[in-house]
Amino acid sequence: MAEIKVHGIKASTCSQRAFATLNEKGLDFQLVPVDIQNAEHKKQPYLSLNPFGQIPVLEDGDLKIFESRAITQYIAYAYADKGNPLVVQDQKEMAIVSVWMQVEAQHFDPPASRIGWELVYKPMFGQQTDNAAVEENEAKLAKVLDIYEARLTESKYLGGDCFTLADLHHLPVVKVLMGTPSSKLFESRSHVKAWCDDIQARPSWQKVIST
Amino acid sequence: MAEIKVHGIKASTCSQRAFATLNEKGLDFQLVPVDIQNAEHKKQPYLSLNPFGQIPVLEDGDLKIFESRAITQYIAYAYADKGNPLVVQDQKEMAIVSVWMQVEAQHFDPPASRIGWELVYKPMFGQQTDNAAVEENEAKLAKVLDIYEARLTESKYLGGDCFTLADLHHLPVVKVLMGTPSSKLFESRSHVKAWCDDIQARPSWQKVIST
Repeated sequence: MAEIKVHGIKASTCSQRAFATLNEKGLDFQLVPVDIQNAEHKKQPYLSLNPFGQIPVLEDGDLKIFESRAITQYIAYAYADKGNPLVVQDQKEMAIVSVWMQVEAQHFDPPASRIGWELVYKPMFGQQTDNAAVEENEAKLAKVLDIYEARLTESKYLGGDCFTLADLHHLPVVKVLMGTPSSKLFESRSHVKAWCDDIQARPSWQKVIST
Repeated sequence: MAEIKVHGIKASTCSQRAFATLNEKGLDFQLVPVDIQNAEHKKQPYLSLNPFGQIPVLEDGDLKIFESRAITQYIAYAYADKGNPLVVQDQKEMAIVSVWMQVEAQHFDPPASRIGWELVYKPMFGQQTDNAAVEENEAKLAKVLDIYEARLTESKYLGGDCFTLADLHHLPVVKVLMGTPSSKLFESRSHVKAWCDDIQARPSWQKVIST
């Protein structure tokens, strides 16, 4: 049995960040399904793994950590000798990667995840989409993607010439939005579109969405 | 003249994250004031430093980076041999620090900064405080601080036994809220209060708020 465990669910965007990173490293792991329909993640013993009651949690031997972006960084550094690098050695080059990791978390994810919530998850749960919220967040996301378009004319990936965590962290929410009318925001920007196509085609990601 | 430059302003919480980190490392730097009242940060040439039009930007030789939390990490790693560590060497211990850095950015900062905006900055700009937003975000912040209180019974600092970036990143917004009625949320939790007192007393931070 694999020593690395991910407590999460296959369809969770945050869990998928962990899965994609483990796949990039070629690491075996065991998915420990969390029964979110019965709110297992909001009760003990799960809360002792993550007091915020969210998925995923990574277990690697005696280490137990939460927050998907902390999990991906741990995997990238702890398994530096396996699979694809995902981070870079040079400190100045890594600083640029780190900037774009922050951009994903602070600028891209809030409007993009809100659109996904309104257009995909609310209908799934029988709730009404708030169209004004979609419009407001599409306008915010468009401004972010204008900056991505300019950035991606300078380098193939957000952090530089290599695929890194700065790109990988976008994958799950990009995938959600690709199934909605908001995909136009990506498809109408040629460098953003090429980047989305490239990162979504990675075997690590194809494995996440096909299993 | 110092080689390291910070484009920002003294009173900006994000700029203060960079200042505190540079002070922890005992590094000289030059503050390049940004005329935000005349929206200098929303125009060229500033936008070529940060396309998102926000402060601060760090310049270190040929490196120019934005996003305060990327700036602090760069300083901590690039100047590992100077001043206080702020990060830890052991990968599993660093993973825990990284978790709490994500917690600050994802869970603490959104409600805490919103309260600061409503209670401090809006009145400063002649705008009306939205009391319902204050109440809603105080409830969110209280839940986060309950988790901090439990965490700080286990270890002196959020990331473990040593002061790290996971603590430092909180300082500017903690300082803002300490001057508002929302300070009660911190003062009513004994371990959170002791932690706030401890981190605010650091010479690096005292230097930020006294200059």
